[in-house]
Amino acid sequence: MTKQRKRNDSLVYASRRRVALREAWGKTDGVAMLVTHGPDVGYLCGFGGEDSLLLLAQGWSCLLTDGRFSSQAAGQCPGVEIHVRSGSIFTAVADVLKGRRIRRIGVQEAHVTLLQRRLLGGAIGARRIRPIDEVIGRLRQVKDAAEIRLIRKAVRAAEDAFRWLISRGAAYVVGRSEREIAAVLDYRMRLAGASGPSFETIVASGANAALPHYRPGGRKIRRDEPVLIDWGAMVDGYASDLTRVIFPGRIPPSIAEVYEVVRRAQAAGIAAIRPAVSCKSVDSAARKLIDKAGYGGGFVHGLGHGIGREVHEAPSLSANARNRLRAGMVVTVEPGIYLPGVGGVRIEDDVLVVPGGRRKLSSLPTTIESMIL
Amino acid sequence: MTKQRKRNDSLVYASRRRVALREAWGKTDGVAMLVTHGPDVGYLCGFGGEDSLLLLAQGWSCLLTDGRFSSQAAGQCPGVEIHVRSGSIFTAVADVLKGRRIRRIGVQEAHVTLLQRRLLGGAIGARRIRPIDEVIGRLRQVKDAAEIRLIRKAVRAAEDAFRWLISRGAAYVVGRSEREIAAVLDYRMRLAGASGPSFETIVASGANAALPHYRPGGRKIRRDEPVLIDWGAMVDGYASDLTRVIFPGRIPPSIAEVYEVVRRAQAAGIAAIRPAVSCKSVDSAARKLIDKAGYGGGFVHGLGHGIGREVHEAPSLSANARNRLRAGMVVTVEPGIYLPGVGGVRIEDDVLVVPGGRRKLSSLPTTIESMIL
Repeated sequence: MTKQRKRNDSLVYASRRRVALREAWGKTDGVAMLVTHGPDVGYLCGFGGEDSLLLLAQGWSCLLTDGRFSSQAAGQCPGVEIHVRSGSIFTAVADVLKGRRIRRIGVQEAHVTLLQRRLLGGAIGARRIRPIDEVIGRLRQVKDAAEIRLIRKAVRAAEDAFRWLISRGAAYVVGRSEREIAAVLDYRMRLAGASGPSFETIVASGANAALPHYRPGGRKIRRDEPVLIDWGAMVDGYASDLTRVIFPGRIPPSIAEVYEVVRRAQAAGIAAIRPAVSCKSVDSAARKLIDKAGYGGGFVHGLGHGIGREVHEAPSLSANARNRLRAGMVVTVEPGIYLPGVGGVRIEDDVLVVPGGRRKLSSLPTTIESMIL
Repeated sequence: MTKQRKRNDSLVYASRRRVALREAWGKTDGVAMLVTHGPDVGYLCGFGGEDSLLLLAQGWSCLLTDGRFSSQAAGQCPGVEIHVRSGSIFTAVADVLKGRRIRRIGVQEAHVTLLQRRLLGGAIGARRIRPIDEVIGRLRQVKDAAEIRLIRKAVRAAEDAFRWLISRGAAYVVGRSEREIAAVLDYRMRLAGASGPSFETIVASGANAALPHYRPGGRKIRRDEPVLIDWGAMVDGYASDLTRVIFPGRIPPSIAEVYEVVRRAQAAGIAAIRPAVSCKSVDSAARKLIDKAGYGGGFVHGLGHGIGREVHEAPSLSANARNRLRAGMVVTVEPGIYLPGVGGVRIEDDVLVVPGGRRKLSSLPTTIESMIL
């Protein structure tokens, strides 16, 4: 993406998000919001640096940053006042609030530490504090066009890396350690435009695939055993998240049946996605198939979760989820079956909710034949 | 490192750290400490997983984790009670405190959010809260033998990757983007045993090197221009942090003089390191030389910082630092001179404070000749 495009997106979309946030919070007069969580700062003003806060009030937005990021902030955050602090960030908050009639301040309860609260105390004086976590969280669930464009890029970078890997064939994978395959995927995502992986890449071979949160180790991959790979890219602040099981050699018979159940469950889950349905019902559409096939006990996690500026965000697709889907949400759909001591299968794609239905953002095939190296 | 070695280190060193922490805090009877910051949890019990808390009281240590990490915890944390929670982590805190005569609880002010504090409220009831940040921070500054061994491994992984890169010669570097060189270094560190980079690798070519906190971009590296590389590895939870400037081709005359000033300043800074000297005086030993050479205005940051479980930790070597060095501290020494619009030079090594002096943990040469590709 060109610099000009980024600047325009920041001007158009980020300012639209700030307006929507103020509207959603309702309280405007005499009220300011202090945004401390990095991904939210980026969401609301386009800034990609660190150690910076965003203050929002009626008709006024101010990014508090330091000398390291001043030129970056000026380029990335058109329409936002940039305050370059020299002292502590909390002194800076006091400085920019001075003379403004602000009586109440919204803060991110989940992203302010007790220490920050104490230091902030002096800066905000007698002003009252209210949590704003929910209102920002609700807003961020529904992605706008600029965000969807970036998630697509993150999906593409992840898929490019995977395609490179499987194009090497079984000879490349066999004999290499899980850790090395993870490192190669991360490297290839970087070459494809990612700033890095969106989480620690999982490469689990043989029985290790039975552990849903396995971390790749020194174990060398052997011929004829499946390898579960769960990986994603971060591109311009947005995440993708995918899973495939690859087969360097023959498919173990115990896995073939499980694979087919998971593949069908995933298709059913995806087909259930459309605006206004409950997140719970999407989970259940996939879970039912796994239960029916007799593997219910092996599907030990939720069906999926939102992705965006963070790789795990709302909404969650699970048995006890309470939300409903809305157009613009982007979720993973990732049923899995784990057979302790034997192995496991999980298939994961990223799906955008659109009016009347859904659109898969990822395009890797899911059939078992296409995963044989 | 073998699993057995890790287990023994965890048993011997981690339990020693817990004893030292209880001793340093002084208050023991009726008091518990709730450790919520991941690196501190790892430090105090050897655990390498996530989303887990450590509770320490008189003669009792308990790791609160969940099903994903229960077998990992059992392996990594001998001598520590493992509580595998099913509900929320704060309900678990209430559960394990039940029936124990704990009147006060130490918490990490810088690592507990307002939301966690609110949820914790129910779990700890009327018990009073005290900050324990400082006492843990002081302890962590001085590294024990197990920690130094891991920092050495992190240094080695970073150096291996760098040596691989420069052994490719100028032909490899020229024409590749900064971002690609950063990705290659990260990949090579992984192959050398790192879990990842210890921070976002900086590759700054030409005039970009004048920005101390530059992020690598799409700019392609040209022949005859210097490239500043600041990188480090994370190995088994410990960080290294190094900087070199490499020259694919000829050395620009404007840079040669600056390079020599920085090299001498670094040597002077390192030579000033020994137990009991003030951190300030170490900074000043290097700064004086840069000032004298007329480049004082170009050295815009402190001389160095501690490394360990985090890539930036106490003590800081800077003009307004107040600590004194102690044997067992590990610090970076990284003077730099930045010439806006022209370029910059920084040379950084990792140094262990030992009785009577210092020992460099990193071994890459610093002379300008050795950095010509």
